[in-house]
Amino acid sequence: MKFEIKREILLNGLNIVSKAMSSKNLIPILSGIKFELKKEGLYLTCSDEDITIQFFIDKKEITKIDYIGSSVIPGKYIIDIFRKLPCDIINIETDGSKILITTDSSEYHLNGMEVNDYPHYNLNISKTPVSISKKEFKDIVNQTVFAVSHQESRPILTGINFKINGDTFEAIATDSYRLAKKKINLEKEVQDQLDFVIPGKNLTELMKIVEDDDKKIKIHIFSNYVLFEFDDILFLSRLLSGTFPNVSNLIPSEFKIEVDINPNDLFNVIDRASILSDREKNVVRFEINKNELIVGCDSLELGKVEERMTIDEIIKEKIKISFNARYMLEALRSFQGKKIKILYNEEIKPIIIKDLEKEDLIQLILPIKTY
Amino acid sequence: MKFEIKREILLNGLNIVSKAMSSKNLIPILSGIKFELKKEGLYLTCSDEDITIQFFIDKKEITKIDYIGSSVIPGKYIIDIFRKLPCDIINIETDGSKILITTDSSEYHLNGMEVNDYPHYNLNISKTPVSISKKEFKDIVNQTVFAVSHQESRPILTGINFKINGDTFEAIATDSYRLAKKKINLEKEVQDQLDFVIPGKNLTELMKIVEDDDKKIKIHIFSNYVLFEFDDILFLSRLLSGTFPNVSNLIPSEFKIEVDINPNDLFNVIDRASILSDREKNVVRFEINKNELIVGCDSLELGKVEERMTIDEIIKEKIKISFNARYMLEALRSFQGKKIKILYNEEIKPIIIKDLEKEDLIQLILPIKTY
Repeated sequence: MKFEIKREILLNGLNIVSKAMSSKNLIPILSGIKFELKKEGLYLTCSDEDITIQFFIDKKEITKIDYIGSSVIPGKYIIDIFRKLPCDIINIETDGSKILITTDSSEYHLNGMEVNDYPHYNLNISKTPVSISKKEFKDIVNQTVFAVSHQESRPILTGINFKINGDTFEAIATDSYRLAKKKINLEKEVQDQLDFVIPGKNLTELMKIVEDDDKKIKIHIFSNYVLFEFDDILFLSRLLSGTFPNVSNLIPSEFKIEVDINPNDLFNVIDRASILSDREKNVVRFEINKNELIVGCDSLELGKVEERMTIDEIIKEKIKISFNARYMLEALRSFQGKKIKILYNEEIKPIIIKDLEKEDLIQLILPIKTY
Repeated sequence: MKFEIKREILLNGLNIVSKAMSSKNLIPILSGIKFELKKEGLYLTCSDEDITIQFFIDKKEITKIDYIGSSVIPGKYIIDIFRKLPCDIINIETDGSKILITTDSSEYHLNGMEVNDYPHYNLNISKTPVSISKKEFKDIVNQTVFAVSHQESRPILTGINFKINGDTFEAIATDSYRLAKKKINLEKEVQDQLDFVIPGKNLTELMKIVEDDDKKIKIHIFSNYVLFEFDDILFLSRLLSGTFPNVSNLIPSEFKIEVDINPNDLFNVIDRASILSDREKNVVRFEINKNELIVGCDSLELGKVEERMTIDEIIKEKIKISFNARYMLEALRSFQGKKIKILYNEEIKPIIIKDLEKEDLIQLILPIKTY
């Protein structure tokens, strides 16, 4: 292939696909980015076997196409070169695995890799994707992904479970100590009932390249992989196999006590109280006495802290409960409203957090027994 | 001691002295910050045995003093607490090693350490310090410190050698592959002839708290330590013992070739050419042919690069020399002017870089032999 392109256009595409580039990868050819120049434009593909990202640059965006072709170019170096070149237009010419990049004052001869050795990834879209705004999809992932497990002992819990049925779209994540659940309504009903689990870390990578706007992201679901289609990007992730536990029934529907509170104020109070907490268990104490909320932490080694805040209503029952501060902080951060409600039954039962007005997001945290 | 103080005033002092706090320190009490409240104000002291920093807060800046005293407070926790507290005024009360920090809504009980166990550091100033503007001193250090050695095989080379004689103040650093030398004139002549070596990493820490203004920094030099006095800060560093090699005679005084060039342009060209260089040796090639400068790099594995730039004059001799790109980049970054001169004799002799107009800064780099 031989073509000329604006540096910033190509660099943008390279930056996006390079999110799938792993320094730890053991397959040498995956350290490269596959360039395929076809009649319709340039496809850039990068993969770490777990995720694959393809970016398309339309021929209209390419300054000049001399002849088409394909090549695998070392990813780390080509990005570094394009980032540092001061010029506007770059010439790229490849002959098999020989790559020549030229500008007015520079000449780079790079050793590429054999394009036929590049693994084949199935990036064909389906006819019936689920469509949702990018902004809404980002919210769903960001409000749940922190609750996935990071332990490989139960691999299925390292993913987010998505359930699509009619016009409801639900996401659940749990590490078995806490649970995050978000439910939204789709604009258009889906025919099939869908239930699949996407690895949390792949969704975290996806979030880095999905912009926060109202344009749609299309989700193409296959038996063992999922393909996200948005802007000029295709993002492929494997699915986790196995059955996600049915955790919705863990969420109580009735509560003895409801405390309404500002999530930011509570966040700051817990954040400060946890300064003295043990880094691993991170236990803080939560007490309510009439209209005062006390968040405390005791450390034999360091000392103790008590933070107080006033709440609007007077709670008759005395509440005393201990929990992992980090779990509570992450749950609180997922709310965008100004008031949340904390729902509580008794000392050893889960705490539930919801928005005061909306019911679409539920955070559940199991308390820690202390003696 | 018992006192009330504005949070931001105390936090500023803590942030400064904590630059001497080391997480690797094996002496437990040095994880604490020593608070000494005296009639004249509050002294905060922190040390890692290598450097010691003291910050003074005048009594006028302290909201209320109930009674004086002293205590050693766990450094990491106290800074975290003060950083996160939302209030304006903080109360601190200590009774031996018991510390109580209170605000309107918070109460922190911290376990401190025995103040009598805190090591004694000699922070007495001398009568005849060397005085220099902070801005000028920052320049001297920043233009030389990168050239110190990081190898403990010759400890003396891990420091900057300062030589003061009459009104000249000179700093030299070398790792034996390159050398940086800066010379300035003092406003006031110094009586004694001084020659001492300060560890480079201590000066790097000092740079973090010296602001870039025209106020003076006073340097008090003792037999085995140095004390910097500026603003409300005392900064103590040990000196390196041993004799710094006499390297000034390595700098040639006559040159066959002089190339005048913009340091930023050359920086960018070398930076790009070195993308393909071996991370360890970092060798790039430098060729001059008439009025063209070519910076190149060859890698068997990755490929090769050639970057070209035009120079103003026509050089008759052909120059070809190889050097460590990182050394050259660091040397180029030390120049503030728009033009530098590169001075050269022959292939295996050192390259010298100076500002085109000023002669106060000299960077020397030894070439690398390539075959």
